[in-house]
Amino acid sequence: MAERVAILGAGAMGSALTAPAVDAGNEVRLWGTWLDDELVAAVQAGAPHPRTSVVVDARVRAFGCDELEAALRDATIVVLAITSDGVLDVLAHAAPHLPAGAPVVITTKGFGRDDGGRVGVIPPRLEAAVPGVAPVVAIGGPCKANEVAARRPTASVYGCRDRAAASRAAAVFSTPRYRVEVSDDVVGLETVAAMKNVYAIALGACQGLAPRGGEPWHNLQAAVFARAVAEMAVLAGAVGGRHDTAYGLVGVGDLEVTGLSGRNKVYGERLGRGEAPADALREMRDAGQVVEGVPAAGLARELAAQLAGDGHLQTGVLPLLDAVLDLIGPGADPAERLSAACLPPAV
Amino acid sequence: MAERVAILGAGAMGSALTAPAVDAGNEVRLWGTWLDDELVAAVQAGAPHPRTSVVVDARVRAFGCDELEAALRDATIVVLAITSDGVLDVLAHAAPHLPAGAPVVITTKGFGRDDGGRVGVIPPRLEAAVPGVAPVVAIGGPCKANEVAARRPTASVYGCRDRAAASRAAAVFSTPRYRVEVSDDVVGLETVAAMKNVYAIALGACQGLAPRGGEPWHNLQAAVFARAVAEMAVLAGAVGGRHDTAYGLVGVGDLEVTGLSGRNKVYGERLGRGEAPADALREMRDAGQVVEGVPAAGLARELAAQLAGDGHLQTGVLPLLDAVLDLIGPGADPAERLSAACLPPAV
Repeated sequence: MAERVAILGAGAMGSALTAPAVDAGNEVRLWGTWLDDELVAAVQAGAPHPRTSVVVDARVRAFGCDELEAALRDATIVVLAITSDGVLDVLAHAAPHLPAGAPVVITTKGFGRDDGGRVGVIPPRLEAAVPGVAPVVAIGGPCKANEVAARRPTASVYGCRDRAAASRAAAVFSTPRYRVEVSDDVVGLETVAAMKNVYAIALGACQGLAPRGGEPWHNLQAAVFARAVAEMAVLAGAVGGRHDTAYGLVGVGDLEVTGLSGRNKVYGERLGRGEAPADALREMRDAGQVVEGVPAAGLARELAAQLAGDGHLQTGVLPLLDAVLDLIGPGADPAERLSAACLPPAV
Repeated sequence: MAERVAILGAGAMGSALTAPAVDAGNEVRLWGTWLDDELVAAVQAGAPHPRTSVVVDARVRAFGCDELEAALRDATIVVLAITSDGVLDVLAHAAPHLPAGAPVVITTKGFGRDDGGRVGVIPPRLEAAVPGVAPVVAIGGPCKANEVAARRPTASVYGCRDRAAASRAAAVFSTPRYRVEVSDDVVGLETVAAMKNVYAIALGACQGLAPRGGEPWHNLQAAVFARAVAEMAVLAGAVGGRHDTAYGLVGVGDLEVTGLSGRNKVYGERLGRGEAPADALREMRDAGQVVEGVPAAGLARELAAQLAGDGHLQTGVLPLLDAVLDLIGPGADPAERLSAACLPPAV
């Protein structure tokens, strides 16, 4: 069933999702925010997208920032491929033009704060902020944008409290190369997706230890990996989701790829090599590289405190999160700190 | 509590385990099999061990092949660091000299066949083959021998149907750098440990695809990783163990390290690059590199058939195992085969 798909946000992930969307036979529009002018111009010129190096399919129509209404006209499904700090704003602008009852799909990850200052995942906040908006479907799973754009095989997970909405969105994007698993555990999915960026810093730190001694620290890295999975499962359960979400594509799968490459892993690697955390972060920021795991770690600590206060989480069950928070502060020794957090207790 | 520890098998893992054993204050003996003369000579000479490049602690006393009885005299705990094809033989030789009631610790992984030809894990076979032998404690978890020998941080799991025996063995070897988790799921542990070698071939194959196209296939690799974890959990349950064993150090942890390095991953990488499976295997064998995942995959298929026959396993629930078996045969396209096995089904 072909639909009219409007993808809002022309960055790496937004532009990448045009590939399965057109391949699946839909009419696809791509709208760029006020930050995306250069990206939209590249798409309109048929040039490689600056973030993925892949040329967006010529059947995709690209819209500039002032063409939001046109991009959304008669759309039957909308995707918000917007970072967590901008997604609410874009949704507010788009709300009057959204198709009634159709799912709103988001690629947004991470934790946010509601008006009362409480930390939580994004989908319930969007649904609460724009009353009458359709159910929010969150995309999770191991999904590097440039590989989706290049049509390399990808397994994704679409989560929504309304499973039928997730299934509908999944059907719109599914192709032989981009396959979608459907889940109703949207809070677990978003929590695990945010935490994997935090834990990728720790995996990167293990990789950074190698150059110091000349030999890999694979045993420690593996212990960190297993500890990360355990903590993602605990948190998924504490927020009202399922432990299993941490054991599947969204958890172990995405942690694997995020620990292999990406900015969180690179930042961790620099910490492992002994660079000062603040200096490494500033240098990466100056190079335009946002390390999402750093703010996510701070918010996760707040979330854990909230959950403990509500009786949903015991204290002391997230030693690796605590270790990452120590590592991104000054003075912690990565090997010692990660060993203390991730090796089993003395018998 | 200091013990007299006899480690039988002077290869990489046997010699590596002398490090935590002496560090924990025990009297430690290392006995070499008829294949280990050169290794024992190196240890006795104070030279680096040929397999780990680490000098074995001078407090360790090394015994040659004809000194088995002396190595075992008054020992209070025995470790068999022997490959699966030799472990029964060594145990039979050692049996008359084993300390009564003390746990026998094995580092052996993989599946074997009982006298009736049925496939299963090693510990019950050892206990059945040498009546009166003490409970067998199996070591699992992400534990590269050279890192243990070099005293880099390592998390290990000791599993035994008799949890007290596992705890006693764990206490003998635990140090601040080599920490041990205790489990009573020995069949799950050994099954998952064997399967991770099979699935590391698939992870390696994904890594081998990169040089072909010049870009990584991380999304596929992550989907393979998640699928591997799911299948390890299914098999652990089917053999009478626990799904959770696949989600911890023995499963996700060891899979992570085995997918990063080692012979199974290297063999898979060669398959991913398009080398003929039989040629790659022969070249590695000629170079003395045993690819344990290859025989383990065949035995795992037999085990799965047995379990299905006994009503413990549904058919079709191990698509990645089937894919690996296809990849190590001729003619399969790794990217297509792994995608078919590991991406979610079409919606």
